[in-house]
This record gives sequence, structure tokens and C-alpha cells, in this order.
Amino acid sequence: MLQSKLFYKTSKEKSADIESISHELLTRAGFIDQLMAGIYTFLPLGFRVLQKIENIIRKNMITAPVSGQEILMPALNPKENWQKTGRWESLDILFKLKGAGDKEYVLAPTHEEVVAPLAKKIIFSYRDLPFSVFHIQDKFRNELRVKSGILRTREFMMKDLYSFHATQTDLDEYYDKVAKAYFNIFKECGISRFTYQTLASGGSFSKYSDEFQTVSEFGEDTIYICEKCQTAVNKEIKNENTKCPKCGGSVFEEKKAIEVGNIFKLGEKYSLPFNLKFRNKDGLEKPVLMGCYGIGLGRLMGAIVEINNDDKGIIWPKDVAPFVFHLIQIGEAGKVVKVCKAIYKIGQKLGIEVLYDDRKDVAPGEKFAEADLIGIPYRIIVSEKTLKANSAEVKERSKKRAKLIKISQLTRFLKTQ
Amino acid sequence: MLQSKLFYKTSKEKSADIESISHELLTRAGFIDQLMAGIYTFLPLGFRVLQKIENIIRKNMITAPVSGQEILMPALNPKENWQKTGRWESLDILFKLKGAGDKEYVLAPTHEEVVAPLAKKIIFSYRDLPFSVFHIQDKFRNELRVKSGILRTREFMMKDLYSFHATQTDLDEYYDKVAKAYFNIFKECGISRFTYQTLASGGSFSKYSDEFQTVSEFGEDTIYICEKCQTAVNKEIKNENTKCPKCGGSVFEEKKAIEVGNIFKLGEKYSLPFNLKFRNKDGLEKPVLMGCYGIGLGRLMGAIVEINNDDKGIIWPKDVAPFVFHLIQIGEAGKVVKVCKAIYKIGQKLGIEVLYDDRKDVAPGEKFAEADLIGIPYRIIVSEKTLKANSAEVKERSKKRAKLIKISQLTRFLKTQ
Repeated sequence: MLQSKLFYKTSKEKSADIESISHELLTRAGFIDQLMAGIYTFLPLGFRVLQKIENIIRKNMITAPVSGQEILMPALNPKENWQKTGRWESLDILFKLKGAGDKEYVLAPTHEEVVAPLAKKIIFSYRDLPFSVFHIQDKFRNELRVKSGILRTREFMMKDLYSFHATQTDLDEYYDKVAKAYFNIFKECGISRFTYQTLASGGSFSKYSDEFQTVSEFGEDTIYICEKCQTAVNKEIKNENTKCPKCGGSVFEEKKAIEVGNIFKLGEKYSLPFNLKFRNKDGLEKPVLMGCYGIGLGRLMGAIVEINNDDKGIIWPKDVAPFVFHLIQIGEAGKVVKVCKAIYKIGQKLGIEVLYDDRKDVAPGEKFAEADLIGIPYRIIVSEKTLKANSAEVKERSKKRAKLIKISQLTRFLKTQ
Repeated sequence: MLQSKLFYKTSKEKSADIESISHELLTRAGFIDQLMAGIYTFLPLGFRVLQKIENIIRKNMITAPVSGQEILMPALNPKENWQKTGRWESLDILFKLKGAGDKEYVLAPTHEEVVAPLAKKIIFSYRDLPFSVFHIQDKFRNELRVKSGILRTREFMMKDLYSFHATQTDLDEYYDKVAKAYFNIFKECGISRFTYQTLASGGSFSKYSDEFQTVSEFGEDTIYICEKCQTAVNKEIKNENTKCPKCGGSVFEEKKAIEVGNIFKLGEKYSLPFNLKFRNKDGLEKPVLMGCYGIGLGRLMGAIVEINNDDKGIIWPKDVAPFVFHLIQIGEAGKVVKVCKAIYKIGQKLGIEVLYDDRKDVAPGEKFAEADLIGIPYRIIVSEKTLKANSAEVKERSKKRAKLIKISQLTRFLKTQ
């Protein structure tokens, strides 16, 4: 992509009172644009990151042992389904609306009310179990207050997986497999070091559910990490227990954290209102046991930025970076332009993602500052000076020192990062 | 994918009074599930098709000369933006809702009210023009009545591209390039033979806009095709003109058709209310000229099925088929199972999409009938009988006759279709 054509705008001005590092940096670097409180547009740079996160999540949901089948459920839901589960009344963040013929709808914040009656049409026997479906889709929450940029919004992309089981053992085993897949996702997104599987309340059906909490100063949640066994618990569990539920330890470290995912054993909770049953091997009807597993894509993007930044800007982990290479042309000398265009062409040919800062009338210092703000992993600078050594200067965003690489070696360099 | 694990259910029962062929077939073959009137879930088979259509559209929007940059704008829009353009009052299909603090929202059916003020933040000079952005996103229309399955729904995935220009000539030229890209899309989706670029009213800014109409018995629209030059016009234009606007011919063929896309020169229509201007080379402020270009993904999927079917079921064009090969195992003989598993494994290894009907307790006739209904392009049957000739029976869904292919030649066959 030619930077002169890219639809974006950066801002040098730092906010006096920042909501969160991610909001500040993603806005200033031109990744997101606020349409109104809690509602954002993802600009081309931001959309590229969102798409990469989406693909990482999708891959991990499709791959065995999670083996989820992707579907797409609608955002508009009938009031009746939400009345059946009692959530039309009890869930205060529901967006409700009326359409033609005074038909009442919910804008779904989650999809148990759709997936359970859907499964009822397809599941009849123990032979139809277990299975799991997921979708990646726009969700809505009528939040009273929003803050922290894309960490808590009124509209957000979310992946939600639902699993269906004949036995508690099967649900338990599958639940643990999804937890492992979640850590793969967080690892690929560059936040696993800071992310804790955190015990949370499990509702009436199971003792605990699990949240995935990424430690960060701007997190809305508080978690407590047992110093002895590193198990984390959320505030609710901490208030109920003076000791660590895993090892009995009693010293906890308190941390602010962002909930980047959660998994929950629903059991019969949504099977019962929709009469979702199956016939077991003995021909007896039993309620299907369900699990649900969520990750918010925008919040995960925010958490990645909260963890990966410095005072100059974002430092994208390679697998979620909008581009892998940032090619920066210094000056307009014929030879410089020629070399830059050649590098860019090689990148296109090899299918390597290069953002090429081809802009005229922009001073080198400004180009560098903007490149630091945007945070692409590898910067390749070509100037008359570097060409005197038949080289380009290469610098990793996460490192202090740059090195010269011979132009003749650059193709190999592009290929091997 | 193992068919024994696939989340779907087919139905043999034909409806007495069908809404459209596509609704009938997509529902009976387990591609879609109706949640409520005009609102559908895409099941795994349907989602795979939707994803292929999405990728075809995305590729054609990103590629030069369209060169659209992908973004993601939100579905929830502030009332204020829609008041500015007058559409809060004038557009009767708007879903309106209230959130926390009595804040009023629109569920967007289109995104001029978001993209124009967004562009205003980034465009200042003629040097920033032209450019175009698109997104593929959930849209909402509060239709009084819905029918025809996924041909007209209250919620639907749509690709909308917006272009921004300094001059009328530039807008005109770009508009024609998008029209060409649209035909590429319809060609890849297997409906170009039946699809006409159709003159429609252009509003106040340009004489005509263009609809892309796919001729089909269940279409809601009527188009008139000039017998002399094959130009199509919609009803509104036909009523205003007794002669063909292109060649002056006066004999038209009347056809029912589905509007699978439309393109429109908006001109200053949305630039003016949002004060979207640029400074030209002489330093004068001018309104930016806009174009908009839409394709509904679900409707396109429906149109594909309307065109590609027979009395047994769907006949998917290869590029949008949920799978390319349907491997059907007949019987449980050890050798049959072994060969089927080997073929399936080769497909997985080569990244070729194979649906493997591994189901026991399902009669061959039922497997064949269901395969015809689902409509995967190539069927590969392995039975004791075919193995006696060291072969599998291969049949294209669109052809009458089957042929035997040696098992030893199957890998090559899989690779070359």
C-alpha cells in the first residue's frame, strides 16, 4: 500500500486526560475513528488488524480439537425468545426496538436465545452429540456509560462459540480444550505473558467459570493472583474466599486487568427453556448440556495495544500488525525512488505486506515519528546516505538499534522475517 | 468435512406454496434457517457459500482499478447524522431505537451518513482525491412485508463502496470501472449471462443510475430489454420513455428480475449536508463528488440459486459452492471405507474441499437424493461395484452422465477440477 493513498490521518497532539493508552494511540495513529460515544469505525489500518485477529481466532476455532463449525446468526432477535429465558426483563444492557407492525426485537448481545432453539431443530439423539458452532458477528450492549475507547463499546465484533454435549464429562473435557485454544489465540496475538485464566462465578450449574484477564493499568476489572501457584481469581471469588481455591495460599497480588475472553459451562440453563433434549442410548430423553465461549475482537485489539507500546507509539506483534514492513523513502533523488519502487514491487510479487511511505513534502523526522506511532514491526529506510553503502537501514520497532542491510540481500530479508 | 458431523438437516417435503426457488431449496438443503420473518441464520453450508461470495466481492473491490480500501463502519448511527440529510424523516424503512440516556439511534441500512462526515476529517485538498473505501457489513431495513426468503430480508450482509472525486469526469470514469468490476463478480458467481446493467432513475444529480438485474421468475422487479440493442431499463424509466434511451428502438421484452446490485452517482447530495469540501489547484473550496456502489450478499446468493437449479436441487457454480467435491461412500465394506478415507485424506492434504458422506444407516438412494439437493459440483461415488473396476464413479451435478475414473487417477482428478 502506498502511504500517499492510505485513508488515514495521524495526530501529534496528546490528549490531556486519556481514557486508555489503546484509545489514545489507536485514535492518534489513525486506526479507529469515533462516530459517537462507544461506537467506532475501523479505518483501513485498524481493519487490517481486526481482520488478522479474526483469522487467528477463526483458525483456532475450526482446528481440532475445538472443531467448531462456522455459522452466522442474526443481530435482530425476536422478543419472544428473550422472554422465554427471562432475559428480556433481567438483562439491563439489552437494546430493544420496534419494527413494522409493532413487532418487538432485541439487538443481540449474545446468542444463546438463537442457538438453543436452532440446535433443537437438528439434535435428536446422542449420536448427534457433541458438536459446536461459532460465529463472528456484530454485537450490541446498551451500556449506561462507556469509556476506554474500544475496550468497552456499545457495538463490537465478537466471536461466540457454543458447544453441545450429552454428558457432564464431555462438557468438562471440551471446556478445557477451548481454554487451551484461547491461550493459543492470546499467544499469537502477543498478550499471553500478561493474560491469566481467572476463576469467576459459575452460576447455578458449575462452581466456576473462567475469564481470561490481561493485566493492564487501564483495565476495568481487578484480579487477584495467588503468589504461590499463580492462579488468578476475580473480585467476586476473592471476596468469597480468603484463601486460594487451588493451593490454599493466602497472599494475593492485586492487578487491574482487561477481560479479553470468557468461557462458561451453561449446562441446562438454556436447554430447559427451549426444551432442547436428546435421546440417550437407553432411549431416555435428557436435556442437552451447553457451553459458551466468547472473545471480543475489538477489546482484544485494545488489549494488544495496552501491552505493546512505548512513549512513541504502538509496537505491533508481527502476526497482528497492519503491515509487516514499513518502507520509508527519504528524499526524491532518482536512485532512492528507483530502489524504493523496486523493493515495493518485490514485496507485492511475493505477497508480503509493505506500507510504502512514498510521500513528498514530508520531512524525514515527521515520517519517522509517524512510523513509530503506527508501530509496524520492521522499518526499512532508503536514503542517499544508505545507498552510498549500497544498503537500506533496517530497524525493528521493538529494538533500539538499526542495522544496514545490502540492497542485494533485501529480498532474502523480506522473505525470512 | 465429515457429513456425519455436519450441522445441518435436509427436508424432502416440498412446500405447497413456495416463496421462491432459492428460499425453498436453501431451506430444504440446510443452508439457511429462518429465525423470524425476514431474518435468517446461515448454517455451515450456507455460511461457506456466503464467505466465498464475500471473498469474490472483496477481491474485486481491492484490485485496481477499483482499489477500494476496506474499513468497518458501525451499524448503530446517531440520529443527528440522519437528521442532517433529512433521511431520519424521509426514509420509511429506518429502524430507530433508543438507548441509555434516551439517546436515539438508527440501525443503518446504508452508510452515506457515516462515510461523508468521516471523509471530512481526512480530505482537505485535491491531492487527497480520488479515493474509495468499502465495507462488508450487517445492514437493516424495517420492511413492512418480507417474502422470497433471502431475496428481501430485514437484516442482510451488504458490501457498500463509496468513492470521492474532485471532478465529474473522474467520477464518471470511476463509475464505469466499478460497473465492469460488478460484471466480473457476477461472472465468478455464475449469473452474468442472466444479469443486465439496467438504467434506473439517477436522482437530481445524474440522469441515470444503474441497477444490476438478474432475470428470474421470482424477481420482485420488472425490467424491459430493448430487442435491438439489449439495453435494459427499469419500470420507472420505461414509463418515462417509449423508446430505448440508447438506440431509439421501441420493442422491449418484459422480464421479472432480482436487483443484485446498484451503483449511483451521488454527486454533492451527501457532501453538502456534511460540508465535505476540498481545495482545488486554484485554492478554491469545492464540494467533493461522491459515488456509491452496493451489492447484497444474501440476495446474490439467492439469485445464484434461482438461476442454477433443476427439479432435484441446487447446482452450485464451482467458485461459490460450499464444497467442490462430494465423496459418497456406499456400504460399509472394508475396502470401500479404506478407499474413501484415503481420498478424503488426500483432499485434506491438498487443501481441496471435500464433503465426505460417511454416514452409516443411510440408503444409497437417500444419499444421492440429498447430494442432488445440496448441489456440490462433483460427486465421487465409491462402492464395492466401482471398486471391482478399481474405480470411483464421478458425476458432475450439472451433467446427466457419470464416468468411471481409476482410483490411481483420482488425485490428479481432484487437483485439476
